[in-house]
Amino acid sequence: MKKFINSVDTLLDESLRGFALAHADIVRLNPAPRFVCRTAPAQPGKVALISGGGSGHEPLHSGFVGHGMLDAACPGQIFTSPTPDQMLAAAQAVDQGGGILFIVKNYAGDVMNFEMAAEMLDIPNAGILVDDDVSIPEHSSSGRRGVAGTTIVEKIVGAAAESGMTLEECRMLGERVVKATASMGVALKSCTVPALGRPSFELADDELELGVGIHGEKGRERIALTTAGNIVERLASTIDDALKPAQGQRALLHINGLGATPLLELYLIYDLARLFWDQRGVSVTRSLVGNFTTSLDMSGCSITLTLLDDEMTRLWDAPVHTAALRWNC
Amino acid sequence: MKKFINSVDTLLDESLRGFALAHADIVRLNPAPRFVCRTAPAQPGKVALISGGGSGHEPLHSGFVGHGMLDAACPGQIFTSPTPDQMLAAAQAVDQGGGILFIVKNYAGDVMNFEMAAEMLDIPNAGILVDDDVSIPEHSSSGRRGVAGTTIVEKIVGAAAESGMTLEECRMLGERVVKATASMGVALKSCTVPALGRPSFELADDELELGVGIHGEKGRERIALTTAGNIVERLASTIDDALKPAQGQRALLHINGLGATPLLELYLIYDLARLFWDQRGVSVTRSLVGNFTTSLDMSGCSITLTLLDDEMTRLWDAPVHTAALRWNC
Repeated sequence: MKKFINSVDTLLDESLRGFALAHADIVRLNPAPRFVCRTAPAQPGKVALISGGGSGHEPLHSGFVGHGMLDAACPGQIFTSPTPDQMLAAAQAVDQGGGILFIVKNYAGDVMNFEMAAEMLDIPNAGILVDDDVSIPEHSSSGRRGVAGTTIVEKIVGAAAESGMTLEECRMLGERVVKATASMGVALKSCTVPALGRPSFELADDELELGVGIHGEKGRERIALTTAGNIVERLASTIDDALKPAQGQRALLHINGLGATPLLELYLIYDLARLFWDQRGVSVTRSLVGNFTTSLDMSGCSITLTLLDDEMTRLWDAPVHTAALRWNC
Repeated sequence: MKKFINSVDTLLDESLRGFALAHADIVRLNPAPRFVCRTAPAQPGKVALISGGGSGHEPLHSGFVGHGMLDAACPGQIFTSPTPDQMLAAAQAVDQGGGILFIVKNYAGDVMNFEMAAEMLDIPNAGILVDDDVSIPEHSSSGRRGVAGTTIVEKIVGAAAESGMTLEECRMLGERVVKATASMGVALKSCTVPALGRPSFELADDELELGVGIHGEKGRERIALTTAGNIVERLASTIDDALKPAQGQRALLHINGLGATPLLELYLIYDLARLFWDQRGVSVTRSLVGNFTTSLDMSGCSITLTLLDDEMTRLWDAPVHTAALRWNC
């Protein structure tokens, strides 16, 4: 295993300390229990947005803490859910009296632990559940996974909370964004989890995995290596089938790198996906290209489409000042 | 070779088209000869800053075109210098009457072609030469290579040009930033150039390359795989020897990913480098962590330190609005 680490046991703490030092103007780290919150507290009465999940997906979620987005993020060990005590401590630290809203990616461990935290806080456990991965059938037993669409949900709901919307308004908006969002990924090469020391799965030199999850979960199909054009056609068709956008529909197109894929290739994927929806009368009015929901050093990417309305567009454009997303601020 | 491409021949054009589509509010692409320039022209009389180099280092340089940074960037083929006709066309497109200033990484082909373009434009060919890679002895025949410090030079000189400084002031400032900047890189795994189809160099599973260049050029030394702490000690010591910062010196610390290294590891490197200079009385007052000067899918990173004064700090903080760097704007 070739990685820049001192030891598997200290990796996460060292990395989080570096993150907090590099962005001390934006975030503060609580080392135990682990959470990252804003350096400057939000205004009184604001809904507090808290997310979290296993580490290894950076900049998600810690990189999204700051004005206009999250109030706090709880990083678990690599690819491991954070624990309820982290969420409880984070909630107590950022509570401004407007209520606490959890944004949770749909994985059994995350869902269970956020539910336990909600119980301990005596708040309704109806957070926003993100399940945008349409590579999985909608009615599978554990439902669809939360993947790169999470960035979009956290940005739009983050702007809503910052603008003074109530807890219930934020929650309903979040559900609306989730419904309007679909993602699908593809892997060329597995990532290597430090504690494991070897690739999470093996792909032959002439194979790729369609519909891979952000932890290297098995995808929808393993196919022979093919052109970027064919890959985009497969991903975009599946997304398009799930969302069924109307002619003239406006949308946000997000190409997300899984960690080891060069920007050169991500922009090529963008170009192909853009053409795909142009030809279907969908007007891509907002774009995001880069590594946002990663899977350590996995070579691969995902396509996310969010159907936009005026309110969502306005909230997407609203000022944001985090380590990983920053504009109009 | 596993990459998201349609063909080696069309990769660059497709990627640039995607880039320009995704950031149409910031940049415009001229397809032939290839250059990227700002969508909104700069104010009359502003010094026009133009950079360029081989592709494969994205977001450098095209991702740095926009308000507060470059006026245009000329992308060559992958790891290949752009040609003088590109630079000439870019200069003619962005000339606002304040003069043209080239920012050139120190590689023989880039230097020669920017000199030819300067001759064709009948302008002094004294652009800003970036040669921050201190892994190479200062008086080697071809000099030191330009690597990740380029981002810092382009940001600071970009802000100076935007603020109305003259051509000569911008040039002198650029030379000052270059002198105050030192970088050194390390590779764990080679990149794969699409036209070649195989890794540019081979490293055993228990080896790493210290002082690697951003095209996979041979480094200073090949050593056995070791801890991140030992690696940072080697890179930071070499940088510190080159810059010899005084006690109490302020500095910008830039940890640059070469393409395939997770943010988790880059922030761990940041933490270690920060501690290294803390212990030497150097005060890191500005930071930049992420993939900015990449080498396709190379697994590795570099450390860059720039010694800051008040003017450089103010210009670093000045508004910037590009695809890859955006703040206060």
